[in-house]
Amino acid sequence: MMSSNTTETPNMAQPTAQPRFDVLAIGNAIVDIIGRCDDAFLARFDAPKGHMLLVEEPTILEIYNAMGPAVEISGGSAANTVAGLASLGGSAAFIGKVAKDTFGEIFAHDIRAIGVAFDTPAADGPTPTARSLILVTPDGQRTMNTFLGVSPELDSGAIGKETVQAAGITYLEGYLFDRDAAKAAFEAAAGFARDAGRKVALTLSDGFCVDRHRDAFLGLIKKDIDILFANEDEICSLYQTSSFDNAAKCIAQDAELAVLTRSEKGSVVLSGSGRSTVEAYPVAEVVDTTGAGDLFAAGFLFGYSRGFDNARSARLGALAAAEIISHVGARPEADLKKLAIDKGLI
Amino acid sequence: MMSSNTTETPNMAQPTAQPRFDVLAIGNAIVDIIGRCDDAFLARFDAPKGHMLLVEEPTILEIYNAMGPAVEISGGSAANTVAGLASLGGSAAFIGKVAKDTFGEIFAHDIRAIGVAFDTPAADGPTPTARSLILVTPDGQRTMNTFLGVSPELDSGAIGKETVQAAGITYLEGYLFDRDAAKAAFEAAAGFARDAGRKVALTLSDGFCVDRHRDAFLGLIKKDIDILFANEDEICSLYQTSSFDNAAKCIAQDAELAVLTRSEKGSVVLSGSGRSTVEAYPVAEVVDTTGAGDLFAAGFLFGYSRGFDNARSARLGALAAAEIISHVGARPEADLKKLAIDKGLI
Repeated sequence: MMSSNTTETPNMAQPTAQPRFDVLAIGNAIVDIIGRCDDAFLARFDAPKGHMLLVEEPTILEIYNAMGPAVEISGGSAANTVAGLASLGGSAAFIGKVAKDTFGEIFAHDIRAIGVAFDTPAADGPTPTARSLILVTPDGQRTMNTFLGVSPELDSGAIGKETVQAAGITYLEGYLFDRDAAKAAFEAAAGFARDAGRKVALTLSDGFCVDRHRDAFLGLIKKDIDILFANEDEICSLYQTSSFDNAAKCIAQDAELAVLTRSEKGSVVLSGSGRSTVEAYPVAEVVDTTGAGDLFAAGFLFGYSRGFDNARSARLGALAAAEIISHVGARPEADLKKLAIDKGLI
Repeated sequence: MMSSNTTETPNMAQPTAQPRFDVLAIGNAIVDIIGRCDDAFLARFDAPKGHMLLVEEPTILEIYNAMGPAVEISGGSAANTVAGLASLGGSAAFIGKVAKDTFGEIFAHDIRAIGVAFDTPAADGPTPTARSLILVTPDGQRTMNTFLGVSPELDSGAIGKETVQAAGITYLEGYLFDRDAAKAAFEAAAGFARDAGRKVALTLSDGFCVDRHRDAFLGLIKKDIDILFANEDEICSLYQTSSFDNAAKCIAQDAELAVLTRSEKGSVVLSGSGRSTVEAYPVAEVVDTTGAGDLFAAGFLFGYSRGFDNARSARLGALAAAEIISHVGARPEADLKKLAIDKGLI
């Protein structure tokens, strides 16, 4: 956390300039392939409901051939978050790796078209752009099988120090920890941000992902992270407890600011100034929960970067999450800024 | 029309076997790239609102680069119709040309995954799969810029006589008339169907398309078409009148069975047995009108192939159209069979 940091460049420890970007996100650059299925289909492919499983290309092809009709929509957790932030009127940048192929073009188009700066060069080799098969069950839950493709080839060289230091908050996706090179990029970015007195945020991404990297995440949270995002499953996995209240007590000790989302039970924000509990925003029908956490983070980070109090930021998060679960896909269909103005939140 | 036909193979003039497919559709194989824009954006690219414009690849790229975030969903007018028919529980086949590229794979996957037989070999050359940029304005209207790519390379050789004669109805998309080879394929199919005593249906596709091929369409309707689908704009364009009632009177003379859709004003079915008027199905919000006519045809053809009366078939059409305009994209998100059972229509 910032308060306990010592830096090598103390003259940079406090930001000297207004950040050019509210948020820079670093994450996997993925196109989602979203279709519907029943629970039996998930069981047939050993897909753990509600989770993200990393798979290789033949598995992706096998599931794709067996699944129903799909739609293709740009995704990627951290990318969804900055897309949401841009839709709210914030300024954002994204760093992530695509290949020079159709899905890479789709990803690059969509993130730029919503107003996010995206300059990471596309890779030239044979490895394709990442894609995630997202299976939505009748209850609206999404289960993901992700082939990372070229995405983990993001390395420290792709992380521009100037870009990181031009952002008020650098937002990191826990999924990046699944590959060493990307993890190194992740840590380089956190270092640049810290050196410039900027904030660093992390999302834990997935309960299984936390299982794979528990100690590394805990170390990072205590050392480098200013704002932690997690859902109930992830925070319980981090502390290996089945009690949300116990997990919340633990993270309140370890993190400066923790934003915990609980689906229809709303959210809890824990900080030095206390605890805020905000209800979920009502939705007529939960169509597809893909991106709910990503968009909650978008709303919260927008509010945070504007200096809103935690409860108001969490309400913005809840509103953005409600929009995203009302339709297929994890990128906003509505103009979130207009929506937030209509609801009196900005 | 069938009643006035003489055929070269009179022993085949009445179908001898139960058709294997309720409907075979022949049309352009297209992936839709759907995004939102305002009326000023349409004006900037001279895109006539509510219509389909044929453009070349550089224009598609120019518009794509300028447009907002998009989603990719399989489309193609006649393909949407058989996808809807399959979702209702009907049996269907599709003939159309894709290339061996990502969009071709997406198209083939989606149409097969919904249960439509699709065996047209993908083309191997450099010309890509067709794509249509669909711009949705805040009123829900869609305006299309289509690059046909490899799609018009469908020629008579791709039309299997056995497949055509195995279908109760062969459904042809007017858009195919825009390229000579595809038009020839279209006419070959109508011939095979007629020879086997099967029905031939045609959709006029677009007012501008009718403008381009008015005489050819009129000739075909009088000679070969058993069921004609058109919307208000198209039928008025066919008879060069601004009066729907006048156009309806004309088509009642020229077509055996005409199914005329009028958006929120419902539909009119004209046949020898009289005139049926059916209201539009209410929708909470018109999100994207793409595919409304295609899905109306799906519902109507399903009912027709089951021997329902025209009003009941039109109500099925209205229900399928209502589902499609409630979300982005022209392929059903809901299980249309379940929806129709819930509404007591099948």
